Amino acid sequence: MYGSYHIKKKSSECAARLGTIYTANGIIDTPVFMPVGTQGSVKGIPIEFLHESGAKIILANSYHLYLRPGTEIIKKAGGIQKFNSWNKAMLTDSGGFQAFSLRNMGRKINNDGIEFQSHIDGSKHFFSPEKSIQIQKDIGADIIMCFDECIPYNSDYQYAMKSMELSLEWAKRCKKEFYRDSSSHSITQSLFGIIQGSVYNDLRIKSTYEMLNIDFDGYAIGGLSVGESKSCMYSVLSNIVHIIPENKARYLMGVGMPEDLWQCVEYGIDMFDCVIPTRNGRNGQAFTSLGKINIKNMKFKDDFSKLDPYCNCRTCKRYSKAYLNHLVKTKEALYLTLLSLHNVHFMINLMSDIRKSLSSDTFLESKRNFFKKYYAKN
Amino acid sequence: MYGSYHIKKKSSECAARLGTIYTANGIIDTPVFMPVGTQGSVKGIPIEFLHESGAKIILANSYHLYLRPGTEIIKKAGGIQKFNSWNKAMLTDSGGFQAFSLRNMGRKINNDGIEFQSHIDGSKHFFSPEKSIQIQKDIGADIIMCFDECIPYNSDYQYAMKSMELSLEWAKRCKKEFYRDSSSHSITQSLFGIIQGSVYNDLRIKSTYEMLNIDFDGYAIGGLSVGESKSCMYSVLSNIVHIIPENKARYLMGVGMPEDLWQCVEYGIDMFDCVIPTRNGRNGQAFTSLGKINIKNMKFKDDFSKLDPYCNCRTCKRYSKAYLNHLVKTKEALYLTLLSLHNVHFMINLMSDIRKSLSSDTFLESKRNFFKKYYAKN
Repeated sequence: MYGSYHIKKKSSECAARLGTIYTANGIIDTPVFMPVGTQGSVKGIPIEFLHESGAKIILANSYHLYLRPGTEIIKKAGGIQKFNSWNKAMLTDSGGFQAFSLRNMGRKINNDGIEFQSHIDGSKHFFSPEKSIQIQKDIGADIIMCFDECIPYNSDYQYAMKSMELSLEWAKRCKKEFYRDSSSHSITQSLFGIIQGSVYNDLRIKSTYEMLNIDFDGYAIGGLSVGESKSCMYSVLSNIVHIIPENKARYLMGVGMPEDLWQCVEYGIDMFDCVIPTRNGRNGQAFTSLGKINIKNMKFKDDFSKLDPYCNCRTCKRYSKAYLNHLVKTKEALYLTLLSLHNVHFMINLMSDIRKSLSSDTFLESKRNFFKKYYAKN
Repeated sequence: MYGSYHIKKKSSECAARLGTIYTANGIIDTPVFMPVGTQGSVKGIPIEFLHESGAKIILANSYHLYLRPGTEIIKKAGGIQKFNSWNKAMLTDSGGFQAFSLRNMGRKINNDGIEFQSHIDGSKHFFSPEKSIQIQKDIGADIIMCFDECIPYNSDYQYAMKSMELSLEWAKRCKKEFYRDSSSHSITQSLFGIIQGSVYNDLRIKSTYEMLNIDFDGYAIGGLSVGESKSCMYSVLSNIVHIIPENKARYLMGVGMPEDLWQCVEYGIDMFDCVIPTRNGRNGQAFTSLGKINIKNMKFKDDFSKLDPYCNCRTCKRYSKAYLNHLVKTKEALYLTLLSLHNVHFMINLMSDIRKSLSSDTFLESKRNFFKKYYAKN
């Protein structure tokens, strides 16, 4: 069944597991990192290069695609995978996070949904759970997400509880809308629920059990990486991941620093997404197996070695640090492509290494070795 | 000998000719279009894509590379072809045109050279003919250009004459500097002279004969496409190109609209360069065999056909007009790459078609057929 998770091997050392997710556009090996293509394009990276990097699934954003080009056009193209020519699996978020991150733009929330103003022209729009599902059906990604409310990390307990309860109600409405007019057999998409509850363990646990009761194809953990400390995020994970049944995929939304990937796989997470590889690339920052570097640094101006001696991406195969330093300093558009590609390749490759370590049941040793190299220079 | 031109076939219909230019980094089939990589990078296009498009030689800019990253770094890298990883033939201009185009930035010209202010930080620099050659030797392009004065198209006769004479003096000094400390056999670069004289036919003719007397590896025609009418440009060409000996390459600087390529090949031009393919790409404009289109146009928002039905570039193989329209409207960086690549491929492919037509001696018929399609929609 689409969206179903199959466990291949469990670590003998921790909660990490090797598995696959089945979609209409390919089988995805997990743990997996999903590059973010907010508006359908992973910023600056030609599709061929993404394919080559080993990416099997990318994200897009319902809110952004709804505003531009509009869901009608994507539907007419035959779905987002055809529209952007990616032709592999995709996931869309529900618009809930954008309503959160754009909360200063005249957002109004009530039990029925969220009214917001377009960040482009200020026009007013309303997303309900039903509307979000309709939009995501039109966009046609393989995995779509429940519409939820995402709240700031410093929200008080009362608000966090009320919001978590609201997201539960909305999750029920999303599922109802998802299956309206269709038998489960005719649907090639799958629907994931999103666990909320801020940093409050009892709320997170309640949200998890209630989401499981509604029964989704997979479960995401939302509302993290919004400003809380790492230890706080890890504490939330360690409290709830084990509650999710083994035969369901677990997706930690918006998280994706290299150290987080190792740590959260250890807690049993299967799926990650993050804008960090492309956003940092645009700022001149590169992830390497020897730690992060900023290519704008003067010391690279005549360093003719590659970004990462252990990397096999197109950027590292061809271009030197000195040339990348020149491209960034002169604001040549090519650096966006080259650094973003390298960073995305780094994350995809890191997940491949993690899967290999799970396959040979040497996850913790591999994790130690990674961190030893990654932090050696600091 | 490096820089030498070999004629392969002459058109029986006009002055057009098929040939090759020999360089240390490859043999170049002519007529040829040279994409411009001002700062070493053809804006937004990965080197692999450029290679695939069939480009054999690209341009870079002495003025820009001298300021950033500085010639020392390029020399240390082993030359510009290694620094930017292009690894094929390159040509640098001398800085003369930048002194012209940046003439409002405190430029001072005297018989010895040009003082100018950096467009980056306002710092003062001085280029003499000798300095320009030294810089171009350090950069290490296969074909380098004499340092000349390029004047506006509305310059009066007296100024045009004085300037043309100055450029002749500078050309002599460039050649002297080029061969200083080296026998001609040890030099892997070649040096081209630049014919000036504005729109005045007698000045252009004098400049041509005098440049021939100095004797260069090839001859460029400079100071055109600076605001004069097309017919004026064609008139200059028809007056001087035939004077240049058949066994020397003829390079028309800064010209490269599709219509100009056909027209000027007909006058006997072998080499072209122009920023139009990448600059127009950044503005959303695409060249196609059915004419120019602006992909931002509303009518393309749900047009799922490719940019050019006859094009085989990576952009056309994969992406629709509708998706490109979306990328441009949302300012997604990928459109810079995709449209620039398509446009560069269009020019390279057009030159390949021109060479084929010369090979089969059907140049004029092919030219008519091209224009018939290219202007059909207007």
